[in-house]
Amino acid sequence: MKLAPTLSTLILSFIIGSSSLFAAEVVKPAPNGINLPAGYKDWKVISISHRTDNKTMRTILGNDIAVKAARAGNTNPWPNGAILGKMVWKQKSEDNWPTAIAPNKFVHAEFMFKDSVKYKSTGGWGYARWKGMDQKPYGKDKNFAQECVACHTPVKANDWVFTTPAIMP
Amino acid sequence: MKLAPTLSTLILSFIIGSSSLFAAEVVKPAPNGINLPAGYKDWKVISISHRTDNKTMRTILGNDIAVKAARAGNTNPWPNGAILGKMVWKQKSEDNWPTAIAPNKFVHAEFMFKDSVKYKSTGGWGYARWKGMDQKPYGKDKNFAQECVACHTPVKANDWVFTTPAIMP
Repeated sequence: MKLAPTLSTLILSFIIGSSSLFAAEVVKPAPNGINLPAGYKDWKVISISHRTDNKTMRTILGNDIAVKAARAGNTNPWPNGAILGKMVWKQKSEDNWPTAIAPNKFVHAEFMFKDSVKYKSTGGWGYARWKGMDQKPYGKDKNFAQECVACHTPVKANDWVFTTPAIMP
Repeated sequence: MKLAPTLSTLILSFIIGSSSLFAAEVVKPAPNGINLPAGYKDWKVISISHRTDNKTMRTILGNDIAVKAARAGNTNPWPNGAILGKMVWKQKSEDNWPTAIAPNKFVHAEFMFKDSVKYKSTGGWGYARWKGMDQKPYGKDKNFAQECVACHTPVKANDWVFTTPAIMP
């Protein structure tokens, strides 16, 4: 019986331990320098959507500044400091209710950061997206946000935001 | 010019003031005695769904015990103290992206309260629902929950819960 760990076991443990630590703690910033907001999964709900054109389900969350603005109807413009976050999944039929469409595989989390000075060149919003369960930053270089701006241009008069906050009691 | 309010104006103001106060502060308990959980709109997201059979959109929220259990995969059974809440809206096309389905008029908020002792007669869950923007309790008398249990019976093996928690990084 060997009670002491072998050298190879020790090395293996080190590698596994390091990988887990890396995955859990280090998410790289987007190419424009924006960092993934800590704790965004715990933010409050502003709305949800089901995009039938690309078969995805979305929940639109907000940081405290954004949620306060949404509930007060103060969204055109949104206040500086507001962050909107979207979690996006591929759709599937809900396992236990086949006529319901529900989230399947996680696609990405994407964000808009309102700062009318800092992000003036992109309409007052900083854009960032992290793909997949390993949260890989989207975009080849810092100009990637031009793609975001182009897509959001039809809602320029809505302070560049597609989402309409859901009505709540 | 009359500067002083008339008696009728004063009475009207009193009635309006009282009604607003009532709507904002008093939500009646469900017929089984369950009270609307304070601050449920601020709970974290567990999943979302689009029910194509009755054209509604739903976000499934949880109190801290429920969210912790959902994230740990500890949902069969859910732990005592867990509360699941659903906000339900009629569907509409998103104003700014017509192929997206989004929340329209608010329908109701409904809840399941896990307590395997207190709610043993209804499968270990207490049920309650508040309808509309004025949050009127659902159900004629305390036996209303039999309707909930009947509908949830197909998912008895899933601890009576339809929702599958969404996968998140």
